[in-house]
Amino acid sequence: MKFSFRPVEGAFYDLFTQAANNLVKGTELLNELALPGVDVQSVSDRLTDVEHDSDQITHDLYKKINSTFITPFDREDIYSLGSQLDDVMDHLEAVGNLLYLYGLTELPSLPREMHELVDVLDQQAKITADAMPRLRAMKGLEEYWIEINRLENEGDRSYRMLLVRLFSGEYDALTVLKMKEVADELEAACDAFEHVANTVETIAVKES
Amino acid sequence: MKFSFRPVEGAFYDLFTQAANNLVKGTELLNELALPGVDVQSVSDRLTDVEHDSDQITHDLYKKINSTFITPFDREDIYSLGSQLDDVMDHLEAVGNLLYLYGLTELPSLPREMHELVDVLDQQAKITADAMPRLRAMKGLEEYWIEINRLENEGDRSYRMLLVRLFSGEYDALTVLKMKEVADELEAACDAFEHVANTVETIAVKES
Amino acid sequence: MKFSFRPVEGAFYDLFTQAANNLVKGTELLNELALPGVDVQSVSDRLTDVEHDSDQITHDLYKKINSTFITPFDREDIYSLGSQLDDVMDHLEAVGNLLYLYGLTELPSLPREMHELVDVLDQQAKITADAMPRLRAMKGLEEYWIEINRLENEGDRSYRMLLVRLFSGEYDALTVLKMKEVADELEAACDAFEHVANTVETIAVKES
Repeated sequence: MKFSFRPVEGAFYDLFTQAANNLVKGTELLNELALPGVDVQSVSDRLTDVEHDSDQITHDLYKKINSTFITPFDREDIYSLGSQLDDVMDHLEAVGNLLYLYGLTELPSLPREMHELVDVLDQQAKITADAMPRLRAMKGLEEYWIEINRLENEGDRSYRMLLVRLFSGEYDALTVLKMKEVADELEAACDAFEHVANTVETIAVKES
Repeated sequence: MKFSFRPVEGAFYDLFTQAANNLVKGTELLNELALPGVDVQSVSDRLTDVEHDSDQITHDLYKKINSTFITPFDREDIYSLGSQLDDVMDHLEAVGNLLYLYGLTELPSLPREMHELVDVLDQQAKITADAMPRLRAMKGLEEYWIEINRLENEGDRSYRMLLVRLFSGEYDALTVLKMKEVADELEAACDAFEHVANTVETIAVKES
Repeated sequence: MKFSFRPVEGAFYDLFTQAANNLVKGTELLNELALPGVDVQSVSDRLTDVEHDSDQITHDLYKKINSTFITPFDREDIYSLGSQLDDVMDHLEAVGNLLYLYGLTELPSLPREMHELVDVLDQQAKITADAMPRLRAMKGLEEYWIEINRLENEGDRSYRMLLVRLFSGEYDALTVLKMKEVADELEAACDAFEHVANTVETIAVKES
């Protein structure tokens, strides 16, 4: 590892890592929804708790930006990265909330493509959490953003096939509309992970 | 008030204030739609007029950016703030237009949650209009963006409960689809006010 | 033409021009879908090929940004412009794919407003492709972004009238939902052309 001339501002890296670890908790909760006999309201409530944690982390990050004279990279980029990690969590929470509010988990089963999308999100969350500590040395990040983009493409395909199924006539119009809302939040979460990766790429381009 | 070393470029603050005052006119017109026996086409037309005013203000702002050597803060931020104020107006106009185009005001009544969302927008417009003149001294802005974010969360909850009602079976599928379009524009307007507040926060962070 | 003091970095302009020319190919393929007896799967596949070309161009552009010491304008703006041109193509591809996947071309005819939107996109693509080489001298760009904005407004009107027709009761609910997805991608493509134009305007403002 090269010696860093940048001021050691570990707190920023810690906050990014905490925020990303929270996203892993979020996708793990979504995975629980697939288990038989799960208490959907409880999962939805715990997602809301994790989302509040994320808000607190984002808030701490913003305060840190305001109170720090020299930041490890551009203030605006720290700000973007923080708010984009927060955006992912908002979409994850929305998925759990909507499944509960619309009573969709009372259906015999959710479409297979929804589970595929949750699985993509889970992988994205894990490699994002792995990548955040590597921001410090600005090393090994390219593989991270390439993989996030690959997963986003995979998510896009699952989303598209999910819509084909929803519009196939298998479900009534109102159920289709409800599932479409959930599908859109799942896809927005996939995209939001990509926005995080794009910002990491922008930071790395500037620093290189 | 501290003495400002920034060049006095009052015209920028005036244009931001005018743009925000126009948003207040916009939300007041949306409020008129709730009145019994209202002429919906007339309200929709007046919204379009207000939107044209906003376009002109945005245009004047861009010309001002181009013709001014020293701007009170970063050109790009002035540009963002102007275009984001304009975005809010686009969504407000869309709400009025769609209600008219889809004939939704012919229903016995619109869902209560729609009125709640218009009320949130009205509050957001008023505190945004109050905050714009404070950009000059960069004081008292934190309470503004905190309140906008709180209102945006309130709007999110109303939006979510609105969808639950729309998908409850109370309305036929086509009416649901029409109302969903209006609901999405209302929610996008709430978000757009938050984008304005985020840009104000970014500017304040840079200047602090 | 004024003598340019900017380092001659023709490769960037070439890549932007190639990306924009690809968008013209994309809208021409969408126009083919209106022809009687067209092989929809073949058009959809060719759109996917053009989209892969665009991905490669974007990738080359990013590599060029990383390996070039002095860029003709801000790295971040080159980056934005490249990714926004890529976004347009993603939406064009989505239109073709969805029309095929949902079997919508098997309908007796698509709504007239859809053809209007494709026509708007075709005009936007052509003037974008014309404008890209003019980035080099930073001349004659204002008329380009004004015209893109005018076309975007025209597209907005067509989109709105398309929704009025879709919700009129002429089609069943599932067909409406499928067409709505296509309509949203068409409208997103119109918007995406405007984002490209806005970035060109931002660059021109900075350079002026």
